[in-house]
Amino acid sequence: MAPQSHLIPSRGAKRAHYDKEMIHSILDEALFCTISYVFENKPFSIPTAFVRRENKLYIHGSVGSHFIWELEKGVPVCISVMLVDALVVAKSAFSHSVNYRSVVLFSQGEKIEDPALKWNMLEWLTNKIVPNSWDYLRPMKENEVRKTTVLAFDIDEVSAKARTGMPNDEEEDKPLPVWSGIIPIETSRRDPVPDELSRNIPLPEHLMPGSK
Amino acid sequence: MAPQSHLIPSRGAKRAHYDKEMIHSILDEALFCTISYVFENKPFSIPTAFVRRENKLYIHGSVGSHFIWELEKGVPVCISVMLVDALVVAKSAFSHSVNYRSVVLFSQGEKIEDPALKWNMLEWLTNKIVPNSWDYLRPMKENEVRKTTVLAFDIDEVSAKARTGMPNDEEEDKPLPVWSGIIPIETSRRDPVPDELSRNIPLPEHLMPGSK
Repeated sequence: MAPQSHLIPSRGAKRAHYDKEMIHSILDEALFCTISYVFENKPFSIPTAFVRRENKLYIHGSVGSHFIWELEKGVPVCISVMLVDALVVAKSAFSHSVNYRSVVLFSQGEKIEDPALKWNMLEWLTNKIVPNSWDYLRPMKENEVRKTTVLAFDIDEVSAKARTGMPNDEEEDKPLPVWSGIIPIETSRRDPVPDELSRNIPLPEHLMPGSK
Repeated sequence: MAPQSHLIPSRGAKRAHYDKEMIHSILDEALFCTISYVFENKPFSIPTAFVRRENKLYIHGSVGSHFIWELEKGVPVCISVMLVDALVVAKSAFSHSVNYRSVVLFSQGEKIEDPALKWNMLEWLTNKIVPNSWDYLRPMKENEVRKTTVLAFDIDEVSAKARTGMPNDEEEDKPLPVWSGIIPIETSRRDPVPDELSRNIPLPEHLMPGSK
Protein backbone atom coordinates (compact mmCIF):
# COMPACT_ATOMS: atom_id res chain seq x y z
CA MET A 1 0.00 0.00 0.00
CA ALA A 2 2.20 2.76 1.30
CA PRO A 3 5.09 2.13 -1.10
CA GLN A 4 2.83 2.52 -4.08
CA SER A 5 1.60 5.79 -2.68
CA HIS A 6 4.96 7.23 -3.68
CA LEU A 7 5.96 5.55 -6.89
CA ILE A 8 2.52 4.63 -8.14
CA PRO A 9 0.61 7.52 -6.64
CA SER A 10 -3.10 6.91 -6.17
CA ARG A 11 -4.87 10.04 -5.00
CA GLY A 12 -2.04 12.31 -6.08
CA ALA A 13 -1.57 10.60 -9.44
CA LYS A 14 -2.20 13.73 -11.47
CA ARG A 15 0.59 15.46 -9.60
CA ALA A 16 3.24 12.79 -10.13
CA HIS A 17 6.13 13.17 -12.54
CA TYR A 18 8.95 10.91 -13.55
CA ASP A 19 10.90 13.00 -16.03
CA LYS A 20 14.52 13.46 -15.09
CA GLU A 21 14.56 17.12 -16.03
CA MET A 22 11.92 18.08 -13.49
CA ILE A 23 13.43 15.82 -10.82
CA HIS A 24 16.89 17.26 -11.38
CA SER A 25 15.66 20.86 -11.31
CA ILE A 26 14.05 20.32 -7.89
CA LEU A 27 17.15 18.56 -6.54
CA ASP A 28 19.37 21.36 -7.85
CA GLU A 29 17.29 24.13 -6.31
CA ALA A 30 16.84 22.60 -2.86
CA LEU A 31 19.84 22.83 -0.51
CA PHE A 32 18.58 20.34 2.08
CA CYS A 33 16.94 16.93 2.04
CA THR A 34 15.61 14.64 4.75
CA ILE A 35 17.16 11.16 4.78
CA SER A 36 15.20 8.37 6.44
CA TYR A 37 16.43 4.88 7.29
CA VAL A 38 15.47 1.96 9.47
CA PHE A 39 17.37 0.96 12.61
CA GLU A 40 16.12 -1.95 14.72
CA ASN A 41 12.75 -1.77 12.94
CA LYS A 42 12.27 1.90 13.77
CA PRO A 43 12.42 4.90 11.45
CA PHE A 44 15.08 7.59 11.82
CA SER A 45 15.43 10.70 9.77
CA ILE A 46 17.84 13.57 9.59
CA PRO A 47 18.00 16.72 7.47
CA THR A 48 21.25 17.30 5.60
CA ALA A 49 22.75 19.30 2.73
CA PHE A 50 23.25 17.52 -0.58
CA VAL A 51 24.35 18.00 -4.16
CA ARG A 52 23.40 16.19 -7.37
CA ARG A 53 25.72 15.37 -10.25
CA GLU A 54 24.53 13.31 -13.21
CA ASN A 55 22.39 10.51 -11.82
CA LYS A 56 23.71 10.59 -8.26
CA LEU A 57 22.86 12.48 -5.10
CA TYR A 58 25.78 13.09 -2.71
CA ILE A 59 25.90 13.87 0.99
CA HIS A 60 28.86 14.26 3.32
CA GLY A 61 29.47 14.03 7.02
CA SER A 62 32.12 13.55 9.64
CA VAL A 63 33.83 10.16 9.78
CA GLY A 64 32.78 10.27 13.46
CA SER A 65 29.08 10.68 12.79
CA HIS A 66 26.83 7.81 13.90
CA PHE A 67 24.33 8.76 11.22
CA ILE A 68 26.99 8.41 8.52
CA TRP A 69 28.22 5.10 9.99
CA GLU A 70 24.75 3.68 9.59
CA LEU A 71 24.19 4.95 6.04
CA GLU A 72 27.60 3.85 4.77
CA LYS A 73 26.54 0.26 5.43
CA GLY A 74 24.30 0.63 2.40
CA VAL A 75 20.98 0.29 4.23
CA PRO A 76 17.84 1.33 2.30
CA VAL A 77 17.05 5.01 2.55
CA CYS A 78 14.19 7.25 1.56
CA ILE A 79 15.33 10.76 0.67
CA SER A 80 12.73 13.50 0.46
CA VAL A 81 13.01 17.07 -0.73
CA MET A 82 10.30 19.74 -0.66
CA LEU A 83 10.16 23.26 -2.05
CA VAL A 84 7.15 25.34 -1.03
CA ASP A 85 6.06 27.87 -3.65
CA ALA A 86 2.76 29.21 -2.33
CA LEU A 87 -0.07 28.78 0.14
CA VAL A 88 -3.29 28.11 -1.77
CA VAL A 89 -6.14 29.97 -0.07
CA ALA A 90 -9.58 28.70 -1.12
CA LYS A 91 -13.06 29.83 -0.15
CA SER A 92 -13.40 26.84 2.19
CA ALA A 93 -10.75 25.46 4.54
CA PHE A 94 -11.34 22.04 2.97
CA SER A 95 -10.12 23.25 -0.45
CA HIS A 96 -7.00 24.94 0.91
CA SER A 97 -3.79 23.51 -0.50
CA VAL A 98 -0.11 24.20 -1.06
CA ASN A 99 1.82 24.80 -4.24
CA TYR A 100 4.98 22.75 -3.87
CA ARG A 101 7.55 20.71 -5.73
CA SER A 102 8.80 17.56 -4.05
CA VAL A 103 10.99 14.56 -4.80
CA VAL A 104 11.02 11.18 -3.09
CA LEU A 105 13.99 8.91 -3.80
CA PHE A 106 14.52 5.32 -2.68
CA SER A 107 18.15 4.29 -2.73
CA GLN A 108 21.11 3.17 -0.63
CA GLY A 109 24.40 4.83 0.10
CA GLU A 110 27.71 3.92 -1.49
CA LYS A 111 30.79 5.17 0.36
CA ILE A 112 33.12 7.06 -1.95
CA GLU A 113 36.72 6.00 -1.35
CA ASP A 114 38.39 7.81 -4.27
CA PRO A 115 39.93 11.00 -2.76
CA ALA A 116 39.62 12.84 -6.10
CA LEU A 117 35.88 12.18 -6.29
CA LYS A 118 35.46 13.13 -2.62
CA TRP A 119 37.33 16.36 -3.38
CA ASN A 120 35.08 17.02 -6.38
CA MET A 121 31.93 16.40 -4.37
CA LEU A 122 32.99 18.86 -1.68
CA GLU A 123 33.67 21.44 -4.40
CA TRP A 124 30.25 20.80 -6.00
CA LEU A 125 28.48 21.06 -2.67
CA THR A 126 30.31 24.24 -1.62
CA ASN A 127 29.60 25.90 -4.97
CA LYS A 128 25.95 24.84 -4.80
CA ILE A 129 25.42 26.40 -1.39
CA VAL A 130 27.56 29.48 -2.04
CA PRO A 131 27.89 29.81 -5.84
CA ASN A 132 31.37 30.45 -7.23
CA SER A 133 32.96 30.38 -3.78
CA TRP A 134 35.28 27.35 -3.93
CA ASP A 135 38.20 29.00 -5.75
CA TYR A 136 38.12 31.97 -3.34
CA LEU A 137 38.34 29.94 -0.12
CA ARG A 138 41.45 28.70 1.65
CA PRO A 139 42.21 25.53 -0.35
CA MET A 140 40.94 22.23 1.05
CA LYS A 141 43.57 20.15 2.87
CA GLU A 142 44.07 16.45 2.33
CA ASN A 143 43.43 15.66 5.98
CA GLU A 144 40.11 17.50 5.78
CA VAL A 145 39.07 15.20 2.95
CA ARG A 146 40.22 12.21 5.04
CA LYS A 147 38.07 13.40 7.97
CA THR A 148 35.01 13.54 5.72
CA THR A 149 32.87 10.65 4.55
CA VAL A 150 31.12 11.13 1.21
CA LEU A 151 28.16 8.94 0.27
CA ALA A 152 26.60 8.62 -3.19
CA PHE A 153 23.00 7.54 -3.85
CA ASP A 154 21.79 6.41 -7.28
CA ILE A 155 18.82 8.41 -8.51
CA ASP A 156 16.76 5.65 -10.13
CA GLU A 157 13.73 4.76 -8.02
CA VAL A 158 12.47 8.31 -7.84
CA SER A 159 9.42 10.47 -8.46
CA ALA A 160 8.54 14.13 -8.28
CA LYS A 161 5.24 15.69 -7.33
CA ALA A 162 4.12 19.24 -7.87
CA ARG A 163 1.06 21.40 -7.47
CA THR A 164 0.81 24.73 -9.27
CA GLY A 165 -1.88 27.29 -9.94
CA MET A 166 -4.90 28.64 -8.19
CA PRO A 167 -7.38 27.03 -5.73
CA ASN A 168 -9.82 24.39 -6.94
CA ASP A 169 -12.93 25.43 -5.07
CA GLU A 170 -16.11 23.33 -5.13
CA GLU A 171 -18.57 24.46 -7.81
CA GLU A 172 -21.12 25.48 -5.20
CA ASP A 173 -18.56 27.64 -3.39
CA LYS A 174 -17.38 29.58 -6.44
CA PRO A 175 -20.05 32.34 -6.26
CA LEU A 176 -19.27 33.10 -2.58
CA PRO A 177 -17.90 36.58 -1.84
CA VAL A 178 -14.88 35.06 -0.09
CA TRP A 179 -11.39 36.00 -1.30
CA SER A 180 -9.44 33.14 -2.87
CA GLY A 181 -6.03 33.01 -4.49
CA ILE A 182 -2.43 32.27 -3.55
CA ILE A 183 0.13 33.68 -1.15
CA PRO A 184 3.53 33.15 -2.79
CA ILE A 185 6.28 31.96 -0.45
CA GLU A 186 9.78 33.18 -1.17
CA THR A 187 13.01 31.92 0.32
CA SER A 188 15.74 34.47 -0.21
CA ARG A 189 19.30 35.26 0.77
CA ARG A 190 19.73 38.52 2.67
CA ASP A 191 22.81 40.73 2.59
CA PRO A 192 25.92 38.98 3.96
CA VAL A 193 26.93 39.90 7.52
CA PRO A 194 30.70 39.81 8.21
CA ASP A 195 32.15 38.32 11.38
CA GLU A 196 34.68 40.22 13.51
CA LEU A 197 37.61 38.84 11.53
CA SER A 198 36.24 40.22 8.27
CA ARG A 199 35.28 43.79 9.05
CA ASN A 200 38.11 45.13 6.89
CA ILE A 201 38.03 42.43 4.21
CA PRO A 202 36.20 43.44 1.03
CA LEU A 203 33.10 41.40 0.24
CA PRO A 204 34.07 39.18 -2.71
CA GLU A 205 32.10 39.61 -5.91
CA HIS A 206 30.43 36.19 -5.69
CA LEU A 207 28.85 37.19 -2.36
CA MET A 208 27.54 40.55 -3.51
CA PRO A 209 23.74 40.86 -3.34
CA GLY A 210 22.29 40.12 -6.74
CA SER A 211 25.23 37.97 -7.86
CA LYS A 212 23.08 34.92 -7.11
CA MET B 1 24.33 3.65 17.55
CA ALA B 2 22.15 5.69 15.26
CA PRO B 3 19.24 6.15 17.68
CA GLN B 4 21.46 7.75 20.27
CA SER B 5 22.75 10.10 17.63
CA HIS B 6 19.39 11.85 17.91
CA LEU B 7 18.35 11.71 21.55
CA ILE B 8 21.79 11.40 23.09
CA PRO B 9 23.74 13.39 20.53
CA SER B 10 27.43 12.61 20.39
CA ARG B 11 29.24 14.98 18.03
CA GLY B 12 26.42 17.51 18.06
CA ALA B 13 25.92 17.34 21.83
CA LYS B 14 26.54 21.02 22.40
CA ARG B 15 23.75 21.82 19.96
CA ALA B 16 21.10 19.62 21.56
CA HIS B 17 18.23 20.96 23.60
CA TYR B 18 15.40 19.31 25.44
CA ASP B 19 13.43 22.25 26.84
CA LYS B 20 9.81 22.28 25.80
CA GLU B 21 9.79 26.01 25.13
CA MET B 22 12.42 25.82 22.42
CA ILE B 23 10.91 22.66 20.92
CA HIS B 24 7.45 24.23 20.83
CA SER B 25 8.68 27.47 19.28
CA ILE B 26 10.29 25.56 16.40
CA LEU B 27 7.18 23.41 15.89
CA ASP B 28 4.97 26.51 15.94
CA GLU B 29 7.06 28.40 13.39
CA ALA B 30 7.51 25.57 10.86
CA LEU B 31 4.52 24.83 8.62
CA PHE B 32 5.77 21.48 7.30
CA CYS B 33 7.40 18.40 8.76
CA THR B 34 8.72 15.19 7.24
CA ILE B 35 7.16 12.01 8.65
CA SER B 36 9.11 8.77 8.28
CA TYR B 37 7.88 5.27 8.93
CA VAL B 38 8.83 1.68 8.16
CA PHE B 39 6.93 -0.49 5.70
CA GLU B 40 8.15 -4.03 4.96
CA ASN B 41 11.53 -3.15 6.51
CA LYS B 42 12.02 -0.15 4.26
CA PRO B 43 11.90 3.53 5.14
CA PHE B 44 9.24 5.85 3.69
CA SER B 45 8.90 9.52 4.28
CA ILE B 46 6.49 12.22 3.26
CA PRO B 47 6.33 15.96 3.89
CA THR B 48 3.09 17.27 5.34
CA ALA B 49 1.60 20.28 7.14
CA PHE B 50 1.10 20.02 10.90
CA VAL B 51 0.00 21.94 13.94
CA ARG B 52 0.95 21.61 17.61
CA ARG B 53 -1.38 22.05 20.58
CA GLU B 54 -0.20 21.41 24.14
CA ASN B 55 1.93 18.29 24.03
CA LYS B 56 0.60 16.87 20.74
CA LEU B 57 1.46 17.30 17.08
CA TYR B 58 -1.45 16.87 14.66
CA ILE B 59 -1.58 16.07 10.96
CA HIS B 60 -4.53 15.47 8.68
CA GLY B 61 -5.14 13.72 5.40
CA SER B 62 -7.79 12.21 3.20
CA VAL B 63 -9.50 9.08 4.48
CA GLY B 64 -8.45 7.65 1.08
CA SER B 65 -4.74 8.28 1.53
CA HIS B 66 -2.48 5.21 1.70
CA PHE B 67 0.00 7.18 3.77
CA ILE B 68 -2.67 7.98 6.36
CA TRP B 69 -3.91 4.36 6.39
CA GLU B 70 -0.44 3.24 7.34
CA LEU B 71 0.12 5.84 10.05
CA GLU B 72 -3.29 5.38 11.66
CA LYS B 73 -2.25 1.82 12.54
CA GLY B 74 0.01 3.41 15.15
CA VAL B 75 3.31 2.34 13.62
CA PRO B 76 6.48 4.07 14.96
CA VAL B 77 7.26 7.32 13.20
CA CYS B 78 10.13 9.77 13.18
CA ILE B 79 9.00 13.33 12.54
CA SER B 80 11.61 15.91 11.61
CA VAL B 81 11.33 19.64 11.21
CA MET B 82 14.04 22.05 10.05
CA LEU B 83 14.18 25.82 9.87
CA VAL B 84 17.20 27.29 8.07
CA ASP B 85 18.30 30.68 9.43
CA ALA B 86 21.61 31.34 7.67
CA LEU B 87 24.43 29.93 5.60
CA VAL B 88 27.65 30.09 7.60
CA VAL B 89 30.50 31.07 5.30
CA ALA B 90 33.93 30.33 6.77
CA LYS B 91 37.43 30.95 5.42
CA SER B 92 37.73 27.26 4.53
CA ALA B 93 35.10 25.04 2.95
CA PHE B 94 35.67 22.59 5.81
CA SER B 95 34.47 25.10 8.42
CA HIS B 96 31.35 26.08 6.50
CA SER B 97 28.14 25.37 8.35
CA VAL B 98 24.47 26.24 8.56
CA ASN B 99 22.52 28.11 11.23
CA TYR B 100 19.37 26.09 11.74
CA ARG B 101 16.79 25.02 14.29
CA SER B 102 15.54 21.45 14.04
CA VAL B 103 13.34 19.04 15.96
CA VAL B 104 13.32 15.26 15.80
CA LEU B 105 10.34 13.48 17.39
CA PHE B 106 9.79 9.76 17.84
CA SER B 107 6.16 8.85 18.33
CA GLN B 108 3.20 6.98 16.87
CA GLY B 109 -0.09 8.20 15.51
CA GLU B 110 -3.40 8.03 17.32
CA LYS B 111 -6.49 8.42 15.13
CA ILE B 112 -8.81 11.08 16.46
CA GLU B 113 -12.43 9.87 16.34
CA ASP B 114 -14.09 12.74 18.24
CA PRO B 115 -15.62 15.02 15.55
CA ALA B 116 -15.30 18.08 17.81
CA LEU B 117 -11.57 17.55 18.29
CA LYS B 118 -11.14 16.92 14.53
CA TRP B 119 -12.99 20.16 13.88
CA ASN B 120 -10.75 22.00 16.36
CA MET B 121 -7.60 20.59 14.80
CA LEU B 122 -8.66 21.73 11.32
CA GLU B 123 -9.33 25.20 12.73
CA TRP B 124 -5.92 25.29 14.47
CA LEU B 125 -4.14 24.13 11.31
CA THR B 126 -5.96 26.60 9.05
CA ASN B 127 -5.24 29.50 11.41
CA LYS B 128 -1.59 28.43 11.72
CA ILE B 129 -1.06 28.46 7.96
CA VAL B 130 -3.20 31.55 7.27
CA PRO B 131 -3.53 33.40 10.60
CA ASN B 132 -7.01 34.58 11.59
CA SER B 133 -8.60 33.09 8.48
CA TRP B 134 -10.92 30.41 9.89
CA ASP B 135 -13.84 32.67 10.85
CA TYR B 136 -13.74 34.38 7.44
CA LEU B 137 -13.98 31.20 5.34
CA ARG B 138 -17.08 29.35 4.22
CA PRO B 139 -17.86 27.27 7.34
CA MET B 140 -16.61 23.69 7.43
CA LYS B 141 -19.22 21.05 6.64
CA GLU B 142 -19.73 17.91 8.65
CA ASN B 143 -19.11 15.68 5.65
CA GLU B 144 -15.76 17.43 5.07
CA VAL B 145 -14.74 16.50 8.61
CA ARG B 146 -15.90 12.92 7.93
CA LYS B 147 -13.73 12.78 4.79
CA THR B 148 -10.68 13.84 6.79
CA THR B 149 -8.55 11.68 9.04
CA VAL B 150 -6.80 13.49 11.89
CA LEU B 151 -3.85 11.87 13.66
CA ALA B 152 -2.26 13.01 16.93
CA PHE B 153 1.31 12.28 17.98
CA ASP B 154 2.51 12.67 21.59
CA ILE B 155 5.51 14.98 21.87
CA ASP B 156 7.55 13.14 24.48
CA GLU B 157 10.57 11.44 22.92
CA VAL B 158 11.85 14.60 21.31
CA SER B 159 14.90 16.82 20.99
CA ALA B 160 15.79 20.08 19.31
CA LYS B 161 19.09 21.09 17.79
CA ALA B 162 20.22 24.54 16.83
CA ARG B 163 23.30 26.34 15.58
CA THR B 164 23.56 30.11 15.84
CA GLY B 165 26.24 32.72 15.40
CA MET B 166 29.29 33.22 13.26
CA PRO B 167 31.73 30.73 11.68
CA ASN B 168 34.18 28.81 13.87
CA ASP B 169 37.29 28.97 11.73
CA GLU B 170 40.45 27.09 12.64
CA GLU B 171 42.93 29.23 14.63
CA GLU B 172 45.48 29.06 11.83
CA ASP B 173 42.89 30.29 9.29
CA LYS B 174 41.73 33.32 11.27
CA PRO B 175 44.41 35.75 9.97
CA LEU B 176 43.63 34.92 6.31
CA PRO B 177 42.29 37.79 4.18
CA VAL B 178 39.27 35.70 3.22
CA TRP B 179 35.77 37.06 3.91
CA SER B 180 33.80 35.11 6.53
CA GLY B 181 30.40 35.66 8.07
CA ILE B 182 26.82 34.62 7.53
CA ILE B 183 24.25 34.92 4.75
CA PRO B 184 20.84 35.13 6.46
CA ILE B 185 18.09 33.09 4.82
CA GLU B 186 14.60 34.51 4.98
CA THR B 187 11.36 32.75 4.14
CA SER B 188 8.64 35.30 3.57
CA ARG B 189 5.06 35.61 2.34
CA ARG B 190 4.65 37.81 -0.73
CA ASP B 191 1.57 39.87 -1.56
CA PRO B 192 -1.54 37.71 -2.10
CA VAL B 193 -2.55 37.08 -5.74
CA PRO B 194 -6.32 36.73 -6.33
CA ASP B 195 -7.77 34.06 -8.61
CA GLU B 196 -10.29 34.94 -11.32
CA LEU B 197 -13.23 34.49 -8.96
CA SER B 198 -11.85 37.07 -6.54
CA ARG B 199 -10.86 40.02 -8.72
CA ASN B 200 -13.71 42.12 -7.32
CA ILE B 201 -13.63 40.78 -3.77
CA PRO B 202 -11.80 43.00 -1.29
CA LEU B 203 -8.70 41.47 0.28
CA PRO B 204 -9.69 40.66 3.88
CA GLU B 205 -7.70 42.37 6.62
CA HIS B 206 -6.06 39.16 7.82
CA LEU B 207 -4.47 38.70 4.38
CA MET B 208 -3.15 42.23 4.05
CA PRO B 209 0.64 42.41 3.80
CA GLY B 210 2.08 43.15 7.21
CA SER B 211 -0.87 41.66 9.09
CA LYS B 212 1.24 38.55 9.66
